[in-house]
Amino acid sequence: MADIYLTRLIENALAEDIGPGDVTAEATIKADSVSDAVMLAKQDQLLAGLDVAREVFRFLDGTIQFFPYAKDGDKLTGGTEIARLSGNTRALLAGERVALNLMQHLSGIATLTAQYVDLIKGCNARMLDTRKTTPGLRRLEKDAVRIGGGGNHRFGLFDGVLIKDNHIKAAGGVAKAVEAARAHAHHLLRIEVETKTMDEVAEALAAKADIIMLDNMTVEMMREAVKLVAGRALLEASGNVSLQTVRQIAETGVDFISAGSLTHSAPAMDISMKIK
Amino acid sequence: MADIYLTRLIENALAEDIGPGDVTAEATIKADSVSDAVMLAKQDQLLAGLDVAREVFRFLDGTIQFFPYAKDGDKLTGGTEIARLSGNTRALLAGERVALNLMQHLSGIATLTAQYVDLIKGCNARMLDTRKTTPGLRRLEKDAVRIGGGGNHRFGLFDGVLIKDNHIKAAGGVAKAVEAARAHAHHLLRIEVETKTMDEVAEALAAKADIIMLDNMTVEMMREAVKLVAGRALLEASGNVSLQTVRQIAETGVDFISAGSLTHSAPAMDISMKIK
Amino acid sequence: MADIYLTRLIENALAEDIGPGDVTAEATIKADSVSDAVMLAKQDQLLAGLDVAREVFRFLDGTIQFFPYAKDGDKLTGGTEIARLSGNTRALLAGERVALNLMQHLSGIATLTAQYVDLIKGCNARMLDTRKTTPGLRRLEKDAVRIGGGGNHRFGLFDGVLIKDNHIKAAGGVAKAVEAARAHAHHLLRIEVETKTMDEVAEALAAKADIIMLDNMTVEMMREAVKLVAGRALLEASGNVSLQTVRQIAETGVDFISAGSLTHSAPAMDISMKIK
Amino acid sequence: MADIYLTRLIENALAEDIGPGDVTAEATIKADSVSDAVMLAKQDQLLAGLDVAREVFRFLDGTIQFFPYAKDGDKLTGGTEIARLSGNTRALLAGERVALNLMQHLSGIATLTAQYVDLIKGCNARMLDTRKTTPGLRRLEKDAVRIGGGGNHRFGLFDGVLIKDNHIKAAGGVAKAVEAARAHAHHLLRIEVETKTMDEVAEALAAKADIIMLDNMTVEMMREAVKLVAGRALLEASGNVSLQTVRQIAETGVDFISAGSLTHSAPAMDISMKIK
Amino acid sequence: MADIYLTRLIENALAEDIGPGDVTAEATIKADSVSDAVMLAKQDQLLAGLDVAREVFRFLDGTIQFFPYAKDGDKLTGGTEIARLSGNTRALLAGERVALNLMQHLSGIATLTAQYVDLIKGCNARMLDTRKTTPGLRRLEKDAVRIGGGGNHRFGLFDGVLIKDNHIKAAGGVAKAVEAARAHAHHLLRIEVETKTMDEVAEALAAKADIIMLDNMTVEMMREAVKLVAGRALLEASGNVSLQTVRQIAETGVDFISAGSLTHSAPAMDISMKIK
Amino acid sequence: MADIYLTRLIENALAEDIGPGDVTAEATIKADSVSDAVMLAKQDQLLAGLDVAREVFRFLDGTIQFFPYAKDGDKLTGGTEIARLSGNTRALLAGERVALNLMQHLSGIATLTAQYVDLIKGCNARMLDTRKTTPGLRRLEKDAVRIGGGGNHRFGLFDGVLIKDNHIKAAGGVAKAVEAARAHAHHLLRIEVETKTMDEVAEALAAKADIIMLDNMTVEMMREAVKLVAGRALLEASGNVSLQTVRQIAETGVDFISAGSLTHSAPAMDISMKIK
Repeated sequence: MADIYLTRLIENALAEDIGPGDVTAEATIKADSVSDAVMLAKQDQLLAGLDVAREVFRFLDGTIQFFPYAKDGDKLTGGTEIARLSGNTRALLAGERVALNLMQHLSGIATLTAQYVDLIKGCNARMLDTRKTTPGLRRLEKDAVRIGGGGNHRFGLFDGVLIKDNHIKAAGGVAKAVEAARAHAHHLLRIEVETKTMDEVAEALAAKADIIMLDNMTVEMMREAVKLVAGRALLEASGNVSLQTVRQIAETGVDFISAGSLTHSAPAMDISMKIK
Repeated sequence: MADIYLTRLIENALAEDIGPGDVTAEATIKADSVSDAVMLAKQDQLLAGLDVAREVFRFLDGTIQFFPYAKDGDKLTGGTEIARLSGNTRALLAGERVALNLMQHLSGIATLTAQYVDLIKGCNARMLDTRKTTPGLRRLEKDAVRIGGGGNHRFGLFDGVLIKDNHIKAAGGVAKAVEAARAHAHHLLRIEVETKTMDEVAEALAAKADIIMLDNMTVEMMREAVKLVAGRALLEASGNVSLQTVRQIAETGVDFISAGSLTHSAPAMDISMKIK
Repeated sequence: MADIYLTRLIENALAEDIGPGDVTAEATIKADSVSDAVMLAKQDQLLAGLDVAREVFRFLDGTIQFFPYAKDGDKLTGGTEIARLSGNTRALLAGERVALNLMQHLSGIATLTAQYVDLIKGCNARMLDTRKTTPGLRRLEKDAVRIGGGGNHRFGLFDGVLIKDNHIKAAGGVAKAVEAARAHAHHLLRIEVETKTMDEVAEALAAKADIIMLDNMTVEMMREAVKLVAGRALLEASGNVSLQTVRQIAETGVDFISAGSLTHSAPAMDISMKIK
Repeated sequence: MADIYLTRLIENALAEDIGPGDVTAEATIKADSVSDAVMLAKQDQLLAGLDVAREVFRFLDGTIQFFPYAKDGDKLTGGTEIARLSGNTRALLAGERVALNLMQHLSGIATLTAQYVDLIKGCNARMLDTRKTTPGLRRLEKDAVRIGGGGNHRFGLFDGVLIKDNHIKAAGGVAKAVEAARAHAHHLLRIEVETKTMDEVAEALAAKADIIMLDNMTVEMMREAVKLVAGRALLEASGNVSLQTVRQIAETGVDFISAGSLTHSAPAMDISMKIK
Repeated sequence: MADIYLTRLIENALAEDIGPGDVTAEATIKADSVSDAVMLAKQDQLLAGLDVAREVFRFLDGTIQFFPYAKDGDKLTGGTEIARLSGNTRALLAGERVALNLMQHLSGIATLTAQYVDLIKGCNARMLDTRKTTPGLRRLEKDAVRIGGGGNHRFGLFDGVLIKDNHIKAAGGVAKAVEAARAHAHHLLRIEVETKTMDEVAEALAAKADIIMLDNMTVEMMREAVKLVAGRALLEASGNVSLQTVRQIAETGVDFISAGSLTHSAPAMDISMKIK
Repeated sequence: MADIYLTRLIENALAEDIGPGDVTAEATIKADSVSDAVMLAKQDQLLAGLDVAREVFRFLDGTIQFFPYAKDGDKLTGGTEIARLSGNTRALLAGERVALNLMQHLSGIATLTAQYVDLIKGCNARMLDTRKTTPGLRRLEKDAVRIGGGGNHRFGLFDGVLIKDNHIKAAGGVAKAVEAARAHAHHLLRIEVETKTMDEVAEALAAKADIIMLDNMTVEMMREAVKLVAGRALLEASGNVSLQTVRQIAETGVDFISAGSLTHSAPAMDISMKIK
């Protein structure tokens, strides 16, 4: 099925890299030359972005053959072959960098997400991303988080209500803000309220928030909030989430743990492509 | 001066985040509400992306006032105020995430670049980025590398000739590849040849490459290459470049050291924006 | 605040109408001619789209002055002046048709919505739109429904889960479909299940659907469903909703009534613009 | 043959509806699931937009098979099957709403047009649309008018000269306005002049207008105008055209009758698509 | 008044030239440097494109001051100052080439057109352009032809009917083709028929073509056609039109003479811009 | 391999010409009609743009068959068949003008370039284009120059450093300007300095410019510059280059001769397409 978002992204990424043309390949490689290529994982990783890479080459040249030896979500050890490709040499070279840049970045996100998810195994909590994504790549990054075993938070400002202190002040209190949101937002959207203290948690609960975000709270406060709320709302822990702290946070009994680092600070995984 | 590239990037980033509208703000904040806001560096960092953030808000609402207290390239300690803003509350909220996402990412790149640059101080070598950038953000990322004190490699496939093994094989040897490139590329482009062994370095030199890339060589090989070439071509070290290895590499006497990690693996710097 | 969506829509609408140029105006009216104009409601209506019309003229010529005598949401009687404009004559003529086409269409939607809303006054139910909108105009049409006193359903396929028979069959039953949706969709999205019989209502309730759609049910069935569900889920009546039937439907106690006709079959309201 | 306009329209319409993804289908339906579907006319209508719907599905997934049982321009009775489709289930679901929204709207226009055309059968007059179309959909709406048996007026401001009172005043009289238009417009464009009184008709005739629009005239005035002009110019009746008045107007002997309601107020025809 | 077409054209032209940035200016000129500049006609010419050039600089930097000393349509002698500019140095340098490329090309067209128009002074015939324009620049080129004193032919395939031999064969004869066109095209479009022989002229006349194109006829044939048609249709001479032949052609009494060379072969006029 | 640049260019060119539709073909030719066509060189020329023309038709209708009888770079005599096409008649007619407009323009450039190249045969100098190209068509025009046997200058402001007097003044002298450029530009870009006198040539040489442009110098000065530089930098002659002067210039021993006329003043070559 056509993926308008992905096609536009690929087109822009290729235009950025190729510009008016690949001077090296045009000078040295014949237009009808064909080659084989192999993609290789050069470090242990959870693979993501292979489907995206395939689309990069399909976009460039519909006759390139793409034989995957792995799939998104696979745990790969360094040295594993990911895919073989066969087709027009210039097209393989023109797509190589864009395909790898995307795969390396997305596998980085999936791999980091999987580390968090592993750490909280057995707990009820689900690991979530945030809106702290790379401008232009949000959908792919959120896909990668899911591939890594995490879940998504709202996509943007439009598909979920998240009431923060500015909204509360402007609306004249938590209850009024929640009420205003219920009146304005459509009925398939839930309402989440950000809180920083136990009083605010109580207030949000009284205002019938569907979800309460515990923002930058200590683990003790989180535990207290879980007790206070007692299942009457979903709880999301946010702030100070790291590989060191995530297990403790999960053990407080919160439902969700969100971390911007999943998408904004995951180092790229090493993947190469050799054209033969 | 109008920056077509940046305007398009900002428009797409905002469209991605805002979509059909900010449901929370529309429900709780009046259309004509005005607020002040402050941007804060929450960790030590080399600032980049402030000019970009300013454009995000200018794009959203030309009447927002933006008072910078720092500028791109400044070394900030955690807790420093970066800027104050004043204007339409909905616009401040709508631009916040995109502005921060860009600044945090770009400051991350500038900060990491500056660490590399510091490590090679006193050596002749210049630290360079690569084409291993985030699709869609290449120009901003390359700007951030320069802000961090590094230099840029070619922007894309179009503004520099980089001959690798595939090109050499296809052209029938290094000499023929360089010759073909000279005939095809315009006269303001230099020609770089990638090498993996001393023999290949010698061959590239004989073929009158302007620049020779030493790909994944040991420090010993690099030293040998510097001696062999003796200033008759520029030398670029590439591969296995890390904060641990970069000084040794620089001390071999190479002219350039390029590292993809500058752009693909720099963790985001923590920057917040509080609306009051 | 910049409205990217609206700006693109206006640009495309004007390009469609003006194409390579307004041959009549270019031939007969001087480039620097200025005029006054007045917009007039020519029939009773609930006004919507005035803000949009203002943007059309602002886009075309930032120096056009626009003096509104009414605002979106006002009930106007035929003959009421809506706004006066003053500025470049060619720009007034170039924007006239696009501005009016949008206003007439959106006022038609708001007016029809208000008729429905009036008919169900005193009932608990809220009148909703659907995805049966005009391709390209969805956001403006949904704004017009809210201006008319209605509420919105989800915007598109992305900001709400609506499980229909195909999804249920594919997932292997209602419970499995709801469970799959909870696992995939983010936690700020509610889940609605479409039902056609009382058994299906019971099943959806058992599966913990947040909202149950009663599709094409008789008023008697709806009443029964309200009793059965007893507040444990929200209920949305859909299908066979008309000005004749809406009151009866509302009196069954359902929470929402959705009707595609609000957006796809509202006749345009008569609005003129005279340039003097 | 590629239809650039239609492809862009479909791409935008699908992007509007699908956004970052169909959360329901992604959760419940496998990526490679295939289904059959049937499109059904649920009320009597003159079909339009079937070719457009076919393109929607072709755009989404080139492997979807589309078997039409009717064609644009067919008079269908409620209950008639319009087409069967077979292919990827997610793609069928993703295209369903956009395809139906377009077909229902276009069939509405064609059906209403056909009613007008039927009413004036035997008269010389031809039924025309206007520029009162839905922004972004003008070409498809004008196609639907032709499918309904009507004719088109000029497409936009660029492909026909229509001189109204503002142009006349600015040019210094009807004769001068026509003369200016002849000098400026290319020779394949005719010139029409809008008139409100018999004096203006006479003036337009004297100025050698190719076509004279009788704007908001009574039937008596139209009859008089026909007599006065006596074939020396084409006559177009405009204003107050309804299903009630159109026959009388046609019987005056005018050549064209234009009505904005064809495109701006035609209720959508009921068409469903069932996926099996 | 906003000119959507021109803004898009300028944006694309600047993006083509500037790409990721002006490396020379960024290296050597401060971002806030200001300069004066002067545009100079370096050969005799009829000026066109000055308004376009002004928009190029306005697009780049709204604070650049632009003082025109001439206007489109002026006959300039070599050495004449066309305009002075004052503003940001980088913006002046960034816009220089695009502005000049457009002006030189458009002045070339206007100048050549004026030569043709001068040669046929006193004759009835009007000099016209064709669709043989530079892809992407048609509107500006057609504007330049009018600035040079010529007239325009239809803009594209959509705003005028031009029946050639293929259409005639497909329709089953001239009469049938004209009839089909009258039925399909809107009533503000005239119908032109291309002819190559006197018999075809007679046929076109009998079919009530509004305009008859005399394609590649000798001057004698044209004269005969004028006599034959005797004012019952407009006549357009096409083919073999050059500065050598145009006077003879005009003297045959045809109404229009069209020549592709006006737009596709006019040499650029020499215009310089000096930044001081 | 997909050519994003070319596809966008073709789409825009076709949209410009076809607009809302080809009224003549839609009226007279059936949608499924098929025809053969032949492209003919009507004057002696060096062919360029055939590949582009092929893409125009491929874009319009993937089923059109295209049989080339020549290829880009061939010297054709008037009367030679260039290609035969077979396929949908409406698509052939819709693509005809755009395809021919591009081919005629590009063949014009290639033919003129070849004339220059022939004239300097035996000399060391290479004929180059400039940035004086048609906005929007630069890449195709530069391709045509290479097809004609010339070479390219830099593509735009971004892929080569060209230091002119403004840059020198702003930087505080030639040496400082070159130094600033070396520091800012990436290491695959060479630096060229524009000079007008022998003193400036000497200065540029001392500043280690890679290339020195001799701007508007007499042949005598060029000869002197060649002697002075003695191979220590490449020399480019620019200004006053014509078919009359180019041989003399080449004989001075300069390395490159650049001429804007190659792209901005080459008359179109006559090529026709007949549909049978």
